[in-house]
Amino acid sequence: MTGVAELPPYIAFEGPEGSGKSTQAALLAGSLGALLTRETGGTAIGRRLRKILHDLAVGDLDRRAEALIAAADRAQHLAEVVIPALHSGRTVVSDRSVYSTLAYQGYGRGLEIDELREINDWAVQGLWPSLVVFADAPAHVVADRLNVRLLDRFEQAGDQFHQRVLDGFRAMAAADPDRWIVVDTHGPKDVVAAGVLREVRARLSENLDG
Amino acid sequence: MTGVAELPPYIAFEGPEGSGKSTQAALLAGSLGALLTRETGGTAIGRRLRKILHDLAVGDLDRRAEALIAAADRAQHLAEVVIPALHSGRTVVSDRSVYSTLAYQGYGRGLEIDELREINDWAVQGLWPSLVVFADAPAHVVADRLNVRLLDRFEQAGDQFHQRVLDGFRAMAAADPDRWIVVDTHGPKDVVAAGVLREVRARLSENLDG
Repeated sequence: MTGVAELPPYIAFEGPEGSGKSTQAALLAGSLGALLTRETGGTAIGRRLRKILHDLAVGDLDRRAEALIAAADRAQHLAEVVIPALHSGRTVVSDRSVYSTLAYQGYGRGLEIDELREINDWAVQGLWPSLVVFADAPAHVVADRLNVRLLDRFEQAGDQFHQRVLDGFRAMAAADPDRWIVVDTHGPKDVVAAGVLREVRARLSENLDG
Repeated sequence: MTGVAELPPYIAFEGPEGSGKSTQAALLAGSLGALLTRETGGTAIGRRLRKILHDLAVGDLDRRAEALIAAADRAQHLAEVVIPALHSGRTVVSDRSVYSTLAYQGYGRGLEIDELREINDWAVQGLWPSLVVFADAPAHVVADRLNVRLLDRFEQAGDQFHQRVLDGFRAMAAADPDRWIVVDTHGPKDVVAAGVLREVRARLSENLDG
């Protein structure tokens, strides 16, 4: 076992906007007594960076610049929040993580996944989530939920972009089943939350046994 | 010859704060009829990023996050300003470039130079300055000039930090003499500017012959 493997669980929720992952992340953190945090915008510096990323006035953001701003948010978040919490013995639940960059800037914007992995591995000091809960949802469910929101720069990016992002999440989940749990977030949120908690607990005890 | 080598010159000015490089960059751009631009803050998005980097209220910025914010500024600057100008046939003079990151975040903050090179090579789409004018200046001259300014986050970083940055610029100039011109900016600015122009013209005509 390495030092990293001995840390408490670092659990990330991933999925498209409107998938219900933020609600489920908060409910799981409550059940586990974990620190709830988020990317982007999990630090004061990150909130300034997030504002640039989501600002509708920023119409001409280069896709490499977009990926690097997200990586900067992440570097700050890991250094300031996630790593200190894990080292103090606390479980961390994060609404999004490094995998969102692979999905949005890689699968979505078409940047090379391997290059994004390398840059982000550097940003996170080699610390990736130990478990990822992927809130999958049919495209029409996501679209219905987004219809009631004021859409930001990402949410307005178009159906094809969002389909590529969703396909990216599904491909990553399929390629790394030991790390990823796929949950269907369709249904009453407390029922979904109970299912998520059961699956996460099962997976964590497997990992402890394994 | 590659496509990149056929582009007009992309000339960067590098050096510590207070070295007089910004003044000299502007004078050279005027003499050459070149586009004058800058890093960080050469674009609207870059100005928002620069504000975070230089803000004295940002006391706890992780050094990886700092490097990634600078790289994001750079990616946007290259994509929006430098590359389009060069492709339209215009010479570009930039006050700072990718080498500032190697000096400040590498030599200054102690991040791995090779890793910074890789990340920034990706940020600039492989396009590095064809010529670098390094405004070297003795430490006491820089200190005197800075004494009359309101110091920002970088300028307040301490003598040892600034000595490492300066040593870094000197090491890079010594290692790559075909690309780097070292100028002494001590003296009346029009005299210095005439010397810079002469050296740059000589170097550019060598490169055209070579």
